[in-house]
Amino acid sequence: MYQTLHVEPGDPARRYPIFIGEGILAESGLFYPFIKGRQICLVTNHTIAPLYLEPLKALLSAQYQVDTVILPDGESWKSLETTQQIFDALLHNKHNRTTTLIALGGGVVGDITGFAAACYQRGVNFIQVPTTLLSQVDSSVGGKTGVNHPLGKNMIGAFHQPEAVIIDTAVLSTLPARELSAGLAEVIKYGLIGDPAFYGWIEANIDRLLALDSPSIAEAIFRSCDNKARVVGEDEKESGIRAILNFGHTFGHAIEAAQGYGNWLHGEAVAAGMVIAATLSSLQGWLNREEVDRLRALLVTAGLPVKPPAGLSVDRFLELMSVDKKVLAGKPRLVLLQSIGQAVITDEVSVEDIGAAIDGCR
Amino acid sequence: MYQTLHVEPGDPARRYPIFIGEGILAESGLFYPFIKGRQICLVTNHTIAPLYLEPLKALLSAQYQVDTVILPDGESWKSLETTQQIFDALLHNKHNRTTTLIALGGGVVGDITGFAAACYQRGVNFIQVPTTLLSQVDSSVGGKTGVNHPLGKNMIGAFHQPEAVIIDTAVLSTLPARELSAGLAEVIKYGLIGDPAFYGWIEANIDRLLALDSPSIAEAIFRSCDNKARVVGEDEKESGIRAILNFGHTFGHAIEAAQGYGNWLHGEAVAAGMVIAATLSSLQGWLNREEVDRLRALLVTAGLPVKPPAGLSVDRFLELMSVDKKVLAGKPRLVLLQSIGQAVITDEVSVEDIGAAIDGCR
Repeated sequence: MYQTLHVEPGDPARRYPIFIGEGILAESGLFYPFIKGRQICLVTNHTIAPLYLEPLKALLSAQYQVDTVILPDGESWKSLETTQQIFDALLHNKHNRTTTLIALGGGVVGDITGFAAACYQRGVNFIQVPTTLLSQVDSSVGGKTGVNHPLGKNMIGAFHQPEAVIIDTAVLSTLPARELSAGLAEVIKYGLIGDPAFYGWIEANIDRLLALDSPSIAEAIFRSCDNKARVVGEDEKESGIRAILNFGHTFGHAIEAAQGYGNWLHGEAVAAGMVIAATLSSLQGWLNREEVDRLRALLVTAGLPVKPPAGLSVDRFLELMSVDKKVLAGKPRLVLLQSIGQAVITDEVSVEDIGAAIDGCR
Repeated sequence: MYQTLHVEPGDPARRYPIFIGEGILAESGLFYPFIKGRQICLVTNHTIAPLYLEPLKALLSAQYQVDTVILPDGESWKSLETTQQIFDALLHNKHNRTTTLIALGGGVVGDITGFAAACYQRGVNFIQVPTTLLSQVDSSVGGKTGVNHPLGKNMIGAFHQPEAVIIDTAVLSTLPARELSAGLAEVIKYGLIGDPAFYGWIEANIDRLLALDSPSIAEAIFRSCDNKARVVGEDEKESGIRAILNFGHTFGHAIEAAQGYGNWLHGEAVAAGMVIAATLSSLQGWLNREEVDRLRALLVTAGLPVKPPAGLSVDRFLELMSVDKKVLAGKPRLVLLQSIGQAVITDEVSVEDIGAAIDGCR
């Protein structure tokens, strides 16, 4: 039993399905139509490998040459050097251009593997099997792949769409609770920026989601991916509207950078950032205080932080957000909410209001 | 004074011009329309830099932030590690996604720079300024970019079209004579595989080409690029007809591999390979001996080798061509000539005929 969401990025020839269901990682029939050659390279990390690698490898080995690459776990390994490990394995095992790469893991594994697939012999197929809630709702749609450079995140990469995304909700049972919450931050974001009915549904079902009730989790993933696909579909190369996906992220990135990446999870920083952005929206007269309080309550229930780090001053925030008062005349570009479910991109917000919003969330 | 050839790879939105003329590297007006931001990264190598880097940098610095990367010269440096040098320079100098990379050099510089442009921030613009005859007639069309892996050539890369190609025929005056000849091998190839009139024109004008007569060189480059664009346009992702561009290359690659890359130039190995392929075509009854002799005479005049290396046995040839007698039942896939100007892809040639063709060329 699974649901299927069809994503159509720009070029209709690149249409691909997202399958969502409990236990579907054991269904080889879901994979077969998307593997065109006889070779597979399964890429995962040291955390996921002991849990899910062998069953999947056994499942596919019946029909294919399956080679595996186990990467170290963590954002700090999302580099060109780590990608080289995949190229080494592909060439060492003589994979030709009909090979299929399968990314089994979270966002880091998916981003690196997708980038390796984009570049190997100038482009081979890949399948995403995201194992964290965050990667299930975020990396499944958009075609962004890539790695970090010491001087910047995601600076080296490619747009490369998967052949299919296979989301087994059962794998979330081994996900640490903190990471489940971090994924929920992005789920809540999709409601906030474009889908008020979904937002109401999340509020009504947050306990079921935290308890990993399977139909509820599947529904949340489906509607998140659907919302992201709609936004991305309107703006494949990220020139305009796609920026609303960054709601809460400008503040969130500042928090991550200030605390050192990895101390706050991305979703945690985004949660606190969304509260700041919502507060700033209310200062513009767009949201009312009650709506901001409801959001705060939902995030707290979801196990997420709603305040910026104690020691992080407004000035340091602005600095990390690359807001230079002189250059921008005090008016940076931000994603705010005109109402719940209605995001807006604006550069009409004063630095003073930003400071007031940050301090108002402490 | 220059000619313009418009190349339209698959997607009409990716149409770009190739400008061909003497001294046009000094015309900044040719560059301006293809630079969308305020930043340029000029990539070249240690051989070309002393000759052409400063004038071009000075020309563009009037209007843009121009940073430079000087790579080591040679195929052995066409690696992911060398590409990293370009990423380092781009990030160190804070290039944003409106930056334009300019590749000033031969095929290696063009391939690396194009690949860096394909991957930097998931794709930025680049302009090709090829400085060898080979890269002018070969790399200007096709959109292939990439680097080598220790286990295979061009294994890591991307399809990424330039915004424009600017070919200044004057730069050939500093090209070693041997490299000019190697480039002519590819020019002759275009006549052989698809343009009998061009082939006749080359025969009639070979002395002018060797003397670097400017209008003749420009004509040869224009018609070569035009021929390649026609073939590539029919088959952008190299599934079928594009393979005819490899005429002479299967044998040529075997020669290069046997001699160690760099001992024979690529074009030299292709020249000897074309004679073998033409001889094999005559064994099939397609070319007559006179046509093979004419080709041999043209290549000799062009300063190119027409015999395989003395010590290279037929068995070693077959091994290097990855022809396994058992696997392929003696019938590898080859590009041959049905007539001058008419290439054909065939797997109906026996290993015995291949051996006879090789030995017949000694």
